[in-house]
Amino acid sequence: VHQFVRKLITEWRRLELPAAGETVVIGVSGGADSLSLLLGMTHLVQTQKLSLRIIAAHFNHGLRGQDSDADEEFVRTTANTLEVEFATKRGHVSDEGNLEQAAREARYDFLRSTAASVHSNLILTGHTINDQAETFLMNLIRGSGIGGLAAMPSVRETELSGVRLVRPLLNWASRENTEGFCVDSRIEYRYDTMNDDTAFKRVRIRRILLPLLADMNPNIVANLAETAARLRELIPADAAHSEVSDSLSIADLVSLDEAVSRSLIRVWLGRQRGTLRALTAKHIAAVDALARSHKSGRVAEIPAGRVVRSGGKLTYLPNKVEKPAP
Amino acid sequence: VHQFVRKLITEWRRLELPAAGETVVIGVSGGADSLSLLLGMTHLVQTQKLSLRIIAAHFNHGLRGQDSDADEEFVRTTANTLEVEFATKRGHVSDEGNLEQAAREARYDFLRSTAASVHSNLILTGHTINDQAETFLMNLIRGSGIGGLAAMPSVRETELSGVRLVRPLLNWASRENTEGFCVDSRIEYRYDTMNDDTAFKRVRIRRILLPLLADMNPNIVANLAETAARLRELIPADAAHSEVSDSLSIADLVSLDEAVSRSLIRVWLGRQRGTLRALTAKHIAAVDALARSHKSGRVAEIPAGRVVRSGGKLTYLPNKVEKPAP
Repeated sequence: VHQFVRKLITEWRRLELPAAGETVVIGVSGGADSLSLLLGMTHLVQTQKLSLRIIAAHFNHGLRGQDSDADEEFVRTTANTLEVEFATKRGHVSDEGNLEQAAREARYDFLRSTAASVHSNLILTGHTINDQAETFLMNLIRGSGIGGLAAMPSVRETELSGVRLVRPLLNWASRENTEGFCVDSRIEYRYDTMNDDTAFKRVRIRRILLPLLADMNPNIVANLAETAARLRELIPADAAHSEVSDSLSIADLVSLDEAVSRSLIRVWLGRQRGTLRALTAKHIAAVDALARSHKSGRVAEIPAGRVVRSGGKLTYLPNKVEKPAP
Repeated sequence: VHQFVRKLITEWRRLELPAAGETVVIGVSGGADSLSLLLGMTHLVQTQKLSLRIIAAHFNHGLRGQDSDADEEFVRTTANTLEVEFATKRGHVSDEGNLEQAAREARYDFLRSTAASVHSNLILTGHTINDQAETFLMNLIRGSGIGGLAAMPSVRETELSGVRLVRPLLNWASRENTEGFCVDSRIEYRYDTMNDDTAFKRVRIRRILLPLLADMNPNIVANLAETAARLRELIPADAAHSEVSDSLSIADLVSLDEAVSRSLIRVWLGRQRGTLRALTAKHIAAVDALARSHKSGRVAEIPAGRVVRSGGKLTYLPNKVEKPAP
């Protein structure tokens, strides 16, 4: 068995994903990343390590003219060869505004509607540690706060109830690994020429910034992905699915050293808000004071919301319903 | 009063530094950063906002030949003009190994011994938000973990008991601010030609990497410094001086939701160890189990040490005495 497949099943089990009885929708562009994921999952089903129905789902964004149609044809043929079901849609992506983002949203819309139509609870994408490192750098440059540096989680809920988005390659596979596995499997992957268009921020990061950083540390991609993973342990990017309870017990808080209770308040607020952004030591101190003294009133104002003391508990109330960070 | 001086006194008060009765040693290279700090502090003393004895301390590392001597002469003359005491030393820095690091260590040795000789408890350096952003990037590239990304604190203890190292410009002043204040004060600062030597990693970051990042976001320096500040609130870089108690009460821990107690354990271990490096969810779970069940034994192994359950408390024991991250 190829090392790539061994690592894939190890990660699948580590993430406690189902081994049988489910349908998975795999987003396949035709590039090495998504193709290696399709190949690996198909292999695991054929060798009966997993018992899942696989749908290869290709979104034809039509942005590269004939090349886009050739991509679609290539993924269709590959799916046929692998004896995997195939779903596709030709979408129109408006090239006004942020083309990159519009294409991504249209693609995810398609994946979600495909999942809904086949009653699948799992959408898989081929994001690698390279994508993770690029996301980390994009968010770092954008100044998105610590929540943004936590980058992508391996598993997150989608807007469709019960449907999860899973990135089984995110924690371990590099672009070299995915390309290597395709080559070893004698499958020629497609090359997306949009990967060369440095008008896209992500491409500039991939083509210019990362090589410069790699010149200073060849291990940079793994380092950045690892840093994101450590931050994600501190502050889950997807705060909506945190196990932390919505309220914080005042009795618990005041029994702790002040420094510890403040750390706890910070972690709690970070999860409630989905980000630590704009949260300063002053805000934390105000919430701590709220717990410790009735003189502090009943409300502490926090960026994007407030914390209310009521019934022996602190509760965070956001100013308005906000989507968790993408 | 110049805005630079107003911001300096505001930061001095925010850091709760003494307003009177102390001697401060200011490291002055002759560059705009340290010179603006010397100018600003002198102004605050002359206008009686502060009542401190100031020593301008210049370390002549001799690495630039005649230029190094000219630097020394310039700082001596400037100190005389400002009617500030002057201390200097000509040191030999070995150019074997890491020249940058050797020069920095020799400089800090000199500042510490100067502080000791004048019974000063405060050493001041002119690090700016640019230095902070560079440190963040250096540590990011090196892969130093979240502790390294927290970069430099504004105040930290030194190896000399009771003597603190203070960076009053770190939180707010940019290199443009320090240069601007020197220009407005009609003092021509010296330019360190070693700032152009891209053999130094820091210079490569300053001259090549940061301009590339600034091209993508002009606000990058402030963003990186802000990110470091937020991380420092989560994980103080100088764990040795955390207010968090050495032991964690098991009764406190088990009264909390598991997710909250794990967050608390993580913060506590991060501070005890000075870094979250190599700490995984598995380790946190092991420590949590140690608190919750006697079946888990008395010890949980953690990278670089272990956590021991004893007397109703958890205590972290490092494998060996480690210096906190610089």
